[in-house]
Parts: sequence; structure tokens; C-alpha cells
Amino acid sequence: MTTVSKTAFRDAMAKVTAPVSIITTNGVSGRGGFTATSICSVTDEPPTLLVCMNVSSSQAQRFVENGQFVVNVLAHDQQKIAELFAGRTKDMDERFAAGSWSSFEGGLPALDHSIVSFACATSDVRRVGTHNIMLGEVKDIMWHGAEHGLLYFDRAYVRQMAGLDSFGG
Amino acid sequence: MTTVSKTAFRDAMAKVTAPVSIITTNGVSGRGGFTATSICSVTDEPPTLLVCMNVSSSQAQRFVENGQFVVNVLAHDQQKIAELFAGRTKDMDERFAAGSWSSFEGGLPALDHSIVSFACATSDVRRVGTHNIMLGEVKDIMWHGAEHGLLYFDRAYVRQMAGLDSFGG
Repeated sequence: MTTVSKTAFRDAMAKVTAPVSIITTNGVSGRGGFTATSICSVTDEPPTLLVCMNVSSSQAQRFVENGQFVVNVLAHDQQKIAELFAGRTKDMDERFAAGSWSSFEGGLPALDHSIVSFACATSDVRRVGTHNIMLGEVKDIMWHGAEHGLLYFDRAYVRQMAGLDSFGG
Repeated sequence: MTTVSKTAFRDAMAKVTAPVSIITTNGVSGRGGFTATSICSVTDEPPTLLVCMNVSSSQAQRFVENGQFVVNVLAHDQQKIAELFAGRTKDMDERFAAGSWSSFEGGLPALDHSIVSFACATSDVRRVGTHNIMLGEVKDIMWHGAEHGLLYFDRAYVRQMAGLDSFGG
């Protein structure tokens, strides 16, 4: 088989709808957070999810050193804070000031008004190319009351509306 | 930190919207396929994605032995074939008969009328609890013309409609 170009890969991945999350951390190396669309469930035995993070990020080392993180799954009306944590500002205080936060044990930030927050202990960090795959064992869960998610599709934020045309069953 | 129960984890993950794909394979151990919602992009250098697969599946070994797989990203009108590959039938011929297929080099099945298919060479398989995380380096891409995806949310298939309320920018 041949290999595909970066551009071809990016163009194709852009058509794969993804949920938008803000990944936060706190601990020995301080508070941090970024917006991610590359997360997924791994196993429920033990409850584990994964997050992919660019190692060129100034925060990459902080996440590794803290050894814990939170996946905050964004609600459909949280695009503005998603944009801030995606890089609209590098200033961590400005990012965090844009939302209201609750706290897990150990000071891990959970974003209010999101759908749900998963507090994770990092169980493994594996470098693949430009990214770290961080495995997180889920140690606590906090619900925030929102119902429908913020999604990313075709390089734009899209709302998952209540009116989604469900046809289950 | 304490640990969360399987049920609490599953209930929370159910609220994280996921794109639905059919993962196919072919090779020395034969043809196979299953429906997955745990996939994500890892890096574009080299173009790599990952798929999580339950090791209790009768097909788990086949995927490892073939060393290659395809991620077929489903269109919004492909719920029926998603259900078949999710387990409605175990009969592989019946599963494949429900769709029309194109072929990548090496006989890897690409699902017609889906959005896009990524042909991958397995670059790593890592066992975590009940699941294998399969890393795939993307070797070829095939577009099929569909625009909008089939999603899974709250334990049901949902359509991503053209009418998604985009508010990018």
C-alpha cells in the first residue's frame, strides 16, 4: 500500500463528526486546559478513556507531570469557551475566567454547565508521531445538567440539537 | 481518588456523541467486520487513527493476524447495516451481503455509500483491560459521496442532518 498525504488525511478526518471536550488538569505543575476532539472510550474494566494531545503544546509536559486530568464534555451552547481553550488565548487565567468551575478531589477543575466531567488518573502516556495518547482511568464523574453536546464537523462547531432526528429501534 | 462503577462510567459515556463506523478487515485470517463507536484521529505525522475493539469478540484475533483494517465512516442512512455489524447477526456472509463494497489494494473492503473509508496498516495493538487499542497508519482513502454521518447518542442511533445548526466563525 502507498501512503496518504497529511492534507488528504485531514480532509477526510474533517468529515468524521466528533464531540468537543475541554481537557483540564491541575497538580504539581499547575493548572492547564485545552480543547480536544480526539477522545474515546477504551474499556469499562477498569473504566478508561483516552485523549490525544499534541506534544508541541506548551502544556504537554504539564499534563504528563500532573498525572491526572479531566474530560469535560461540552454542551451545545459552550462554543465560546471551546474557542478560548482551542487557542484563541494562550493566557490560562483568561481561559479559566470564561467559565465557572467546580472541583474534584485534588483540585481538578470540572466545567459547570457542561454535560459531564470525567476525573482521570493517567495510567499511561504513549507517544505516536506528533501526539501523546493519554490513557485515563476514571476515578470520579460529575454531572452538570446539560443534555446535548457541542460537536465538530467539517472544520466548524455544530450544535447537537434536541431536535436530532432519532430513529432508534 | 476513589473509582467509579462500570455502570456509572457507561451511563456517562452514553452522553458523549460518537460517529458510527464499520471496521472491516481481510487477509491471511479472512474477512471480518464490526460496528464501532470508539475511534479517533491520533496524528497526521504519520497519518494515524485508532480503533478500540473488545478482545472477547470472536474476530479479535483475526484483526490482529490480518494486520490491516478499514474504518468506514457511516452515512446517516446506514443504520441497518450498522445494526447487522453490531451483532444482529454473527454470520459474516450475511453482514457483508447487506451492503455493496469496493476494494482497496489487498482486498480490504470499503463500504459504498458511506462517507469515507480509511485503509490502515496496523502499527500497534495494545491491550487495555477488555479491549485492544489498534493503531492504524492510513495507507489509502476512498470517498463514497455521502455528506452527513450516522451518530450514536444516549444508546440510540441519531442522524446528523444537513440541517445541523452550524454557527461556526
